[in-house]
Parts: sequence; C-alpha cells; structure tokens
Amino acid sequence: MDYVLYQNRIIPKNELHIDMDDRGYNFGDGIYEVVRVYNGIPFAMDEHLDRLQHSASELDMTVPYSMETIEKLVYDLIQKNEINSGMIYFQLTRGIQPRNHLYSRDIEPVLSGFSKPLETNVEWQQNGLDTWMTKDIRWLRCDIKTINLLGNIMAKREASDNNCHEALQHREGLVTEGSSSNLFIVKDDVIYTHPSTNLILNGITRRITIRLAYQIEATIKEKPFTLEELKQADEVFITSTTMEVTPVRSIKGDLTASYSIGPWTRKLQHAFTDYRKKQQ
Amino acid sequence: MDYVLYQNRIIPKNELHIDMDDRGYNFGDGIYEVVRVYNGIPFAMDEHLDRLQHSASELDMTVPYSMETIEKLVYDLIQKNEINSGMIYFQLTRGIQPRNHLYSRDIEPVLSGFSKPLETNVEWQQNGLDTWMTKDIRWLRCDIKTINLLGNIMAKREASDNNCHEALQHREGLVTEGSSSNLFIVKDDVIYTHPSTNLILNGITRRITIRLAYQIEATIKEKPFTLEELKQADEVFITSTTMEVTPVRSIKGDLTASYSIGPWTRKLQHAFTDYRKKQQ
Repeated sequence: MDYVLYQNRIIPKNELHIDMDDRGYNFGDGIYEVVRVYNGIPFAMDEHLDRLQHSASELDMTVPYSMETIEKLVYDLIQKNEINSGMIYFQLTRGIQPRNHLYSRDIEPVLSGFSKPLETNVEWQQNGLDTWMTKDIRWLRCDIKTINLLGNIMAKREASDNNCHEALQHREGLVTEGSSSNLFIVKDDVIYTHPSTNLILNGITRRITIRLAYQIEATIKEKPFTLEELKQADEVFITSTTMEVTPVRSIKGDLTASYSIGPWTRKLQHAFTDYRKKQQ
Repeated sequence: MDYVLYQNRIIPKNELHIDMDDRGYNFGDGIYEVVRVYNGIPFAMDEHLDRLQHSASELDMTVPYSMETIEKLVYDLIQKNEINSGMIYFQLTRGIQPRNHLYSRDIEPVLSGFSKPLETNVEWQQNGLDTWMTKDIRWLRCDIKTINLLGNIMAKREASDNNCHEALQHREGLVTEGSSSNLFIVKDDVIYTHPSTNLILNGITRRITIRLAYQIEATIKEKPFTLEELKQADEVFITSTTMEVTPVRSIKGDLTASYSIGPWTRKLQHAFTDYRKKQQ
C-alpha cells in the first residue's frame, strides 16, 4: 500500500482525489519542495521549510500548517511508506475556487505529497554527466519554487532527446542554471556560480555547497559567467537535492565542451557527503 | 446537476477526480481554450480547435481526439448544462505519470472542461475599463496557450488590488498585452497592436478584430508600441473571448493616462457584434 500526504493527514494513495477547480490544476498556481531522505531521516528539512514559507510569501499565499506540523507529516509519510533512502515531494496550491484569473484570498490551500525510494546515482557521481545547453525561456521569477515548470520540462526533454542527462540554460549568453539543478564552474582555483537573483532558483544544495566551499577555504564568487567562460572552465559541476554534487563531463547544444573531473569538485563532493552524514 | 467534460465523456461533476500524478497538477503541463457560447452555439469553434492543435504541437503533445469529437463534446456539454449565453473551458494536460521533469511520450493526455453561464458586461462595453500597467514577467513562449499562468494571475491580482479590472503588461517599455486580453491603440486613425510573436498570445478575438478592421477599411498595423505611444493614443481597447471588444478608459501603475471612447472602438464593437450574430 502506497501512502500519500493530503492536507494534514497521511492517507492511502487511492483515496486521494484532486478537484478539477484546484488552482494548481488550472493555473499551476502553487509551490513545492523536494526533500532528500537518508537513513529514514529528511535532510535539510528546516531549510526546505523556510524556502516553502518564502515561496508562499512571494506568491501572496499562506501556508496553512505550522512548520512543525509539516515536518511531522513528512516523518509520518517516511515511516508509513518505509522509506530508508529516498525523497519526499510536497506541493502547496492556492486552493479550490471556480476558475478565475483573479484569485480569492479566502480559499484554503491544498497540501499534497508523496515519497519514493531513491539512491544517489553512483555512476554520475564518479564519472560525470553529459549536459545540453539551451536558451533559458522561463519567466523572470525563477527565484520562487513554483509548479509553473513548462520551461524547465521542455529543456529537460530536449536534453534527453540529445542523449544528455540534464539541460543547462543561458539567457542571451549569460549562463543561469540547470533545468533542475544549479551550476558551478571552477577557473584558476576560483569557484563561480550565478548569484541568487530572480533568474535562478536558490537551491538548498547550492546554499550548502557554498557554505562548504567557505569551510574548506575555497575562493567562491557568486557572479554570472558567460558561455565562453563556461567553455574555458577547468571544472564544471551541478548541485541538486537528488543529484547532490555531480560533475559535468560534457556540454553539447548551444555550446560544445568537455571537462575532466577536477580536485575542487571532488573536495566538495566529499565535504557534502561528510556534512550530510553528520546531520544524522 | 452540474456536468463536466472528462476525456470523451460528459459526466456529473462530483464523479470527476483528478489524479495527483497528472502532469497538469505537478508542472502546469497542459494547454487550454475558452470558447464563448451565444444562443447555445459555441462561437469561433474551428479557430479555437485550430489553436488547441497548434499549442499541443508546440509542446510536443498529441490531441487524443479528433476535432469533430471535441466539437461534439462541447455541444453535448452546452446541452446537458442548458447553457444559452455562457462559456466553455477545456484543458488538455500531458497525462498521468510518476512525477518526473522528463515526460514520457507514451502517456495518454487528460481532457477536462466545464461550462458556465456568462453575459457580456454591458457597463464595460459602454463606459470602458480601468486598467493597471505592470511589468511583463512571463516566459518567452506566451504564444502557446498553456496553463502555466502564474505571471498572468499575479498581474491580475495586482490590478484588482489597485481597483482596476484588467492588467496591461510591458517588457522594458514595449507594451505586450493584457493579463487575459490583447491590447490595441488608435493614433491618428491608425490602429496598432503587438504583432503575433512569442511575446503575446494571439487571441481568437484579436484575429477576428484584425480581420474586421480590414473589412471596415481601417488602417491597422501589427507593430509594437511603447508606453509613451500608449500614453499619447487617441483610443485604447482590449479584446478577449469573454470581453469581446472593450474600451479602456484609464491606465494607472507604470503609466498614468485616461482616454475617451472613440469612433474606431465603437465601429469595431459594432462590427464584432454584427459578425458574431451572423455566425448563428
């Protein structure tokens, strides 16, 4: 039996029905989080909950439960579904209302979510990913973690159709981020990543990686870089909740380049693994 | 009893359940149409179905039913719900699949829809709308009629919070369109509207209005205009399926202006009413 999260309860999946008037279904009017589970324990839960709160606030939404309640629900879901190594997805839509662009502030948001087993991809961690560079066509509030994800999924499909694992995106030559990851480069022992502006989603793993870089005394700069700077980089890696710190070994598409996996990527992979083990 | 459209059937609304794994619910991965009903007959149905086909094709989706089948379903829905003056909404999502950015091409799309009674707002038709000018923050494929509508609904809410009926949007000073309408201006007896590019949704009422403008021998140019040109316009009006041709009487927000309702707006309102009556 597969259990899911619905509002403040854990219920069997076959009992969950979404209303056709849920604004999530008509407008993509909602936000979400993906939390990694290691050894049955959700990783960086506080940071994910903080970001959920931030996304809600930016979209003029209210989170209907306390952070403690959501955390408890996540633990219950992990336990019910017996997740050891896996992930939790949860989303919050604005609520149910007869379809109208103009949303009401009086409706009750809808919280739903699921869990799934997941192992870190060891092959990718070791040997790196093939990636596809394409135009960033998304809206100008990528800093909000919304379920309006068409730009991301079109990029991801294009990458896959070109035998690549992840899409990278650029806006008029300035590199932003992956379709479901953040992007870092290393040049002359300096690590660069796009600053946390409206043009990228400030990933939790991105934030942890930046903190870890300071801790291992790397030089790290949050500064946009161009396609040409990416091409000339010594090392390239991406970060995400599900992919952790994963090297990039090649880029095709709007840019062609290949990279060997370098010392800073390895150091940050180890630092990340150490850090997340310490959290448990 | 309220009936809704689900796949190729008309069913009671309380029997319709949306799956939490519907990509429409997790990614806003879908398209839609709104069709006006006058005297029990859907208006410009062929054009709406053509555009649905176009949106599907641009998103690498397949419409699972023939256009004849969808048209018949729309007629059935009108009849079942006894709609005389109203609208039909229908959307097509990519289908149901365990959540993954990477969509499968093997899943069955989900068609759903509803009807509702609606009368043209006579007050607005006569005296015009108050509008709110704000930044266009949407993605770069506004030509596809998708349910990724967060940019639109945030603009609409902002307009309403400022006591305006509709939001107008500009991208770095070039005016694009309304949050759920297209925008036209008249200056020195020439009608201007943003060309049909990736930056606007080419509305069915927009297309009809352009054709009617040619028929009444107006000079019409599909050419972007600036905020300043909008301010200096002699007449301003919007078009949409639900609002038909509606004058704009004021703009606030990133631009302040007011307009009297001019002869070209009135001529096009009459031409539109004549045209839609002839279709029945």
